[in-house]
Amino acid sequence: MFNSFGHIFRVTTWGESHGPALGCTVDGCPPGVAVEEAQLQHWLNKRKPGKTKFETQRREPDAVRILSGVFEGKTTGTPIQLMIENTDQRSKDYGDIAETFRPGHADITYWQKYGIRDYRGGGRSSARETAARVAAGGVAREVLKALAPGLSITGGLVQMGPHKAQRRDWDEVENNPFWTPDAEAAALYADYLDGIRKAHSSVGAAIEVVARGVPVGLGAPVYAKLDTDLAAAMMSINAVKGVEIGEGMAAAALTGEANADEIDMGSDGPVYSSNHAGGILGGISTGQDIVVRFAVKPTSSILTPRRSIRKDGTPTEVVTKGRHDPCVGIRAVPVGEAMMACVILDHLLLDRAQTGGIRGPIGGAS
Amino acid sequence: MFNSFGHIFRVTTWGESHGPALGCTVDGCPPGVAVEEAQLQHWLNKRKPGKTKFETQRREPDAVRILSGVFEGKTTGTPIQLMIENTDQRSKDYGDIAETFRPGHADITYWQKYGIRDYRGGGRSSARETAARVAAGGVAREVLKALAPGLSITGGLVQMGPHKAQRRDWDEVENNPFWTPDAEAAALYADYLDGIRKAHSSVGAAIEVVARGVPVGLGAPVYAKLDTDLAAAMMSINAVKGVEIGEGMAAAALTGEANADEIDMGSDGPVYSSNHAGGILGGISTGQDIVVRFAVKPTSSILTPRRSIRKDGTPTEVVTKGRHDPCVGIRAVPVGEAMMACVILDHLLLDRAQTGGIRGPIGGAS
Amino acid sequence: MFNSFGHIFRVTTWGESHGPALGCTVDGCPPGVAVEEAQLQHWLNKRKPGKTKFETQRREPDAVRILSGVFEGKTTGTPIQLMIENTDQRSKDYGDIAETFRPGHADITYWQKYGIRDYRGGGRSSARETAARVAAGGVAREVLKALAPGLSITGGLVQMGPHKAQRRDWDEVENNPFWTPDAEAAALYADYLDGIRKAHSSVGAAIEVVARGVPVGLGAPVYAKLDTDLAAAMMSINAVKGVEIGEGMAAAALTGEANADEIDMGSDGPVYSSNHAGGILGGISTGQDIVVRFAVKPTSSILTPRRSIRKDGTPTEVVTKGRHDPCVGIRAVPVGEAMMACVILDHLLLDRAQTGGIRGPIGGAS
Amino acid sequence: MFNSFGHIFRVTTWGESHGPALGCTVDGCPPGVAVEEAQLQHWLNKRKPGKTKFETQRREPDAVRILSGVFEGKTTGTPIQLMIENTDQRSKDYGDIAETFRPGHADITYWQKYGIRDYRGGGRSSARETAARVAAGGVAREVLKALAPGLSITGGLVQMGPHKAQRRDWDEVENNPFWTPDAEAAALYADYLDGIRKAHSSVGAAIEVVARGVPVGLGAPVYAKLDTDLAAAMMSINAVKGVEIGEGMAAAALTGEANADEIDMGSDGPVYSSNHAGGILGGISTGQDIVVRFAVKPTSSILTPRRSIRKDGTPTEVVTKGRHDPCVGIRAVPVGEAMMACVILDHLLLDRAQTGGIRGPIGGAS
Repeated sequence: MFNSFGHIFRVTTWGESHGPALGCTVDGCPPGVAVEEAQLQHWLNKRKPGKTKFETQRREPDAVRILSGVFEGKTTGTPIQLMIENTDQRSKDYGDIAETFRPGHADITYWQKYGIRDYRGGGRSSARETAARVAAGGVAREVLKALAPGLSITGGLVQMGPHKAQRRDWDEVENNPFWTPDAEAAALYADYLDGIRKAHSSVGAAIEVVARGVPVGLGAPVYAKLDTDLAAAMMSINAVKGVEIGEGMAAAALTGEANADEIDMGSDGPVYSSNHAGGILGGISTGQDIVVRFAVKPTSSILTPRRSIRKDGTPTEVVTKGRHDPCVGIRAVPVGEAMMACVILDHLLLDRAQTGGIRGPIGGAS
Repeated sequence: MFNSFGHIFRVTTWGESHGPALGCTVDGCPPGVAVEEAQLQHWLNKRKPGKTKFETQRREPDAVRILSGVFEGKTTGTPIQLMIENTDQRSKDYGDIAETFRPGHADITYWQKYGIRDYRGGGRSSARETAARVAAGGVAREVLKALAPGLSITGGLVQMGPHKAQRRDWDEVENNPFWTPDAEAAALYADYLDGIRKAHSSVGAAIEVVARGVPVGLGAPVYAKLDTDLAAAMMSINAVKGVEIGEGMAAAALTGEANADEIDMGSDGPVYSSNHAGGILGGISTGQDIVVRFAVKPTSSILTPRRSIRKDGTPTEVVTKGRHDPCVGIRAVPVGEAMMACVILDHLLLDRAQTGGIRGPIGGAS
Repeated sequence: MFNSFGHIFRVTTWGESHGPALGCTVDGCPPGVAVEEAQLQHWLNKRKPGKTKFETQRREPDAVRILSGVFEGKTTGTPIQLMIENTDQRSKDYGDIAETFRPGHADITYWQKYGIRDYRGGGRSSARETAARVAAGGVAREVLKALAPGLSITGGLVQMGPHKAQRRDWDEVENNPFWTPDAEAAALYADYLDGIRKAHSSVGAAIEVVARGVPVGLGAPVYAKLDTDLAAAMMSINAVKGVEIGEGMAAAALTGEANADEIDMGSDGPVYSSNHAGGILGGISTGQDIVVRFAVKPTSSILTPRRSIRKDGTPTEVVTKGRHDPCVGIRAVPVGEAMMACVILDHLLLDRAQTGGIRGPIGGAS
Repeated sequence: MFNSFGHIFRVTTWGESHGPALGCTVDGCPPGVAVEEAQLQHWLNKRKPGKTKFETQRREPDAVRILSGVFEGKTTGTPIQLMIENTDQRSKDYGDIAETFRPGHADITYWQKYGIRDYRGGGRSSARETAARVAAGGVAREVLKALAPGLSITGGLVQMGPHKAQRRDWDEVENNPFWTPDAEAAALYADYLDGIRKAHSSVGAAIEVVARGVPVGLGAPVYAKLDTDLAAAMMSINAVKGVEIGEGMAAAALTGEANADEIDMGSDGPVYSSNHAGGILGGISTGQDIVVRFAVKPTSSILTPRRSIRKDGTPTEVVTKGRHDPCVGIRAVPVGEAMMACVILDHLLLDRAQTGGIRGPIGGAS
């Protein structure tokens, strides 16, 4: 249970940063869906480092292989194994890292909990684990194409340090290296991050992921709420410290009048005057856009020395030289999208199980 | 799976607002722990409405009964059934509510998903369900007393509308009706909420729950992270729209230098210069305070009319008269505490399973 | 997880033999299905003791109440709580039982595992727990009526001591107190059990449960096989020591030629020349009858003294006086039926989730 | 959930007979345990075909690789990926098999359920899947060495066709190709199977697996009973049709007097006069030997033609030429042992979680 998520569409990831490979098993996938490695690779490439100067210059081809569960180009309903071999494993002296705990990393908690840790590149706590999620998300997207045509999932950076995106122009995301839906924000991010990068510093970010065309009725009270599972999915991503649905934390400041999403009857069913709820009421999708945001902390891999200790308890200072992402939030965008895809598909399957697609009729629409 | 949470210490809740009773089954509880109804009742009373003018004036005794799993005052290791009978079920005409969807409620999504709903008082979507969580949390607290002496869990309202608590004086929480750790904020809340109440309006809130004395090493990569389970637990509470750990969403604005929690060696093990991480690194507890915040939206039960539709699709207006909580966040405090207690205990048991309490030695301490 | 079974249609039971009540939560039930207490009571009455001289003369009304999840006579999709109050709790001196371990009972293992046990009437290990299963099975049967019309589930005693049923005349089961599908066996059982009863002895039994009209395609490789879940379900019943599907243990003696179920094409799809497989191939239902057998050991509550020990380790002798079932297998029949109903429904829902009812076409049939 | 088993020590298998590879993820493994590929290979070699003339002459090296979760020779507590590449994938014309359903195989049910199947070598339904279980069982054995020293697990063929082993001389199993604990039975099996093999027929078998030195107190009421999980584990193995604990189906024929295991006080705790219960009372281990038997049906791959149909519904005859196991039960021995190891370890971890090793004292022993 420790390394799996999902109820029906269940993903189990495995692998360390510097082991021979990493990957995941995708269980419970509906059969008969066309899935190719190239489709999954598309999303892995979106997450891959080194695309721009704003990302670490490591080179990881992150080539995904389908080892099972797909036959003659289609899913068979049996578990799909997706494997990514690790190639950029520089042979280097890890002696110092092995004995030292980097502040803000899982080094110390892994050590204390397990009494052993694979210190090479962060081992299991490395963000490389998210490559497996992105691959699984690619499978989920193909299944969603078949089961919920018209559904789309798009994410983007809506905050970097002091700069927040003011617009949600989702057509804009392909035009900038931050996948931000605000062209002006993209320019501000670029300048700001250049400074961060040159100072060998780092900065946090907020990512928003929106799913449009989600069927009504996904989710279930009380502990399999759609928002519950989305919160867990996003919080499980490395470095995430907060998750919001719709208004999110800002809901604390609102009055009932300001927060109300009024309901009218449209030609295809209910329509809402606003979407403070982020597309979810009582844990169940309304058919409006599902809007999720999450915040990623700045990586602690910075040039400024930080106080820490060694395994023997003696004090030391930690400075991170070399290649790192000045804003890990950028590469978290496709990860957030992948988690959204997996969770929505999982709930679509759960809903088929329990209700078989029953929908209470409203007016003439059902 | 729909109505359960927890891996080992697993709670399954049941019951509707206006059925004969509601309750929960607590499975996986360690044996031999002294648990009495009076201990659980203490926490249910904290959640009970009608204690002050700032809460709904409904009278629900919320008396909890232990129906199984406790013998001669001690847990036996078998499932504990906790039942609360519903008593304040006014016989009234629900005809109108039955046909109308209240904006911001689960009325419409339940109807669409299931094609049927118990409309009386919100049915399963009512916040009355949280009474069962508080009872389960009471059991968790007693077990934690035995297994993690010194651990304490305290929550309080840290934001109401525009007012934010500036201090974290946790001894203060018993002195004001908002359990806020800031006496000055309490005064501001009181004035502000009086106005909200008289206007038959409502307002959102943010709650912070802090666990002190948590053992090092609880949580596990990658999908049973302590923060993942806390995020799910809090997001599953009615009306919650955002969850934060430590810096939370504010982490998006920080640089690596500002966010670093430096590490020194203390006499009992590592000590940290700050707690931006909220007590969790890599999904595993550091031994620092676990700090969780969540935002509750304002109830949509307000006097101002809101546009909506009936089941037949015709337009209507909804106005909520009568008894309601102007700030449901207040009564969410004991609920958040209960969820924290359940999640921490669950991870303590999980950790016993996998590691048997192995802790990597640091310096002389282990 | 300790007290739950099922993937989607998930049942969690609770309660001890001599506590105030016992019951279960039925989660994941499809909405909109008519369910009444009287329907569930029918099956509880079948299990109730004291109907004939072949059963214990205890009087337990075993009246079931629906406390949640059903509104205006229909399931709502929310958890259904079924409660049965314990009424026949004689106030007696348990002093001796409290200190002594009865051979063949769970007294000693509960004590060793938990360090505490509710010794009154066996506590949680009592077969009274199966009343909750029968109630849950009643719900499953009503749902199956709606989702798989034509499906029927019938069980009967096919062995008692040395006597085995030679026929499977399922119309016969209502005509004898053993629900055996063989009238001649019924006569043999009656004579034999009279002797056992008068000698204050006890005897084992084998029960066969047959499900007819099961849809093709339920079950899934590799660990959610239909037979896997049936085996677990039956083995979880008190006193069960063996489970068989189709040929069962006798398959060890067969050759491939003798065991083959040949396939022909019928007007409605494939038909089989025989059913050695018991209706399951590769873990998935074929559409033939699902045939499950299980053996129940004789109760150890007998008049002949047996050597045992007390909690303090001193030797003692145990003799069970008073009311007991000479053949507990009889009352296990409705329990086996209930488990079959729950497992089949659960797999029907699982199949809806993953395949949405896809069926590979054979000839003209699909 | 479809391809996983275990609660804490959770194994997820993946892979088809003729895909590039198969394997499993072992999650929840305790950290710090020495595990090497060579140790796992030992058990895979025991299962490997072609060792004697009584097995299929296919050559599969079944070399297992550890891809994650082990660092510097020790488990780290993170998921362990075990991969076995498929090498003996003869390029052959599967055209006929693709269109035909072999009687007694999962061909037809997979097709009907999923509408697609990987027909090469049985795909996911192939017994090759059990190689992954044996690898996982190898890990479990190493952990058990550390956590339950003195525990041993041994299996053997106790029935082949008409011949049953009369003795349980477990030291004998290494001396014959059937791992039978009865030297005389071994001779009978050899003669008998020679005839079966030359006739291109096949035969069923029964396997017994015994665990000695199992700690008291493993298992839990009511649905995580040790026998429940053992029954599910064994029934999930390909071709298994029955599972027995202790007396098994024979319990149906016994009286209470004959079935009683009397209890005496020994120097190290309770001792039992017999073991009809197979080491489990009320779902919890007594400390006696755990005795499990299961029956494997004869493979339907035989030379005698059998009637069947094609996908288009037309009749055909199926004859299996070429390499096959005349008694698949032989190679099921290490598989049954592996499942026993996994289940016992899983319950040992579960017991640590809930009770932390509490044991009720008996006499002076605790």
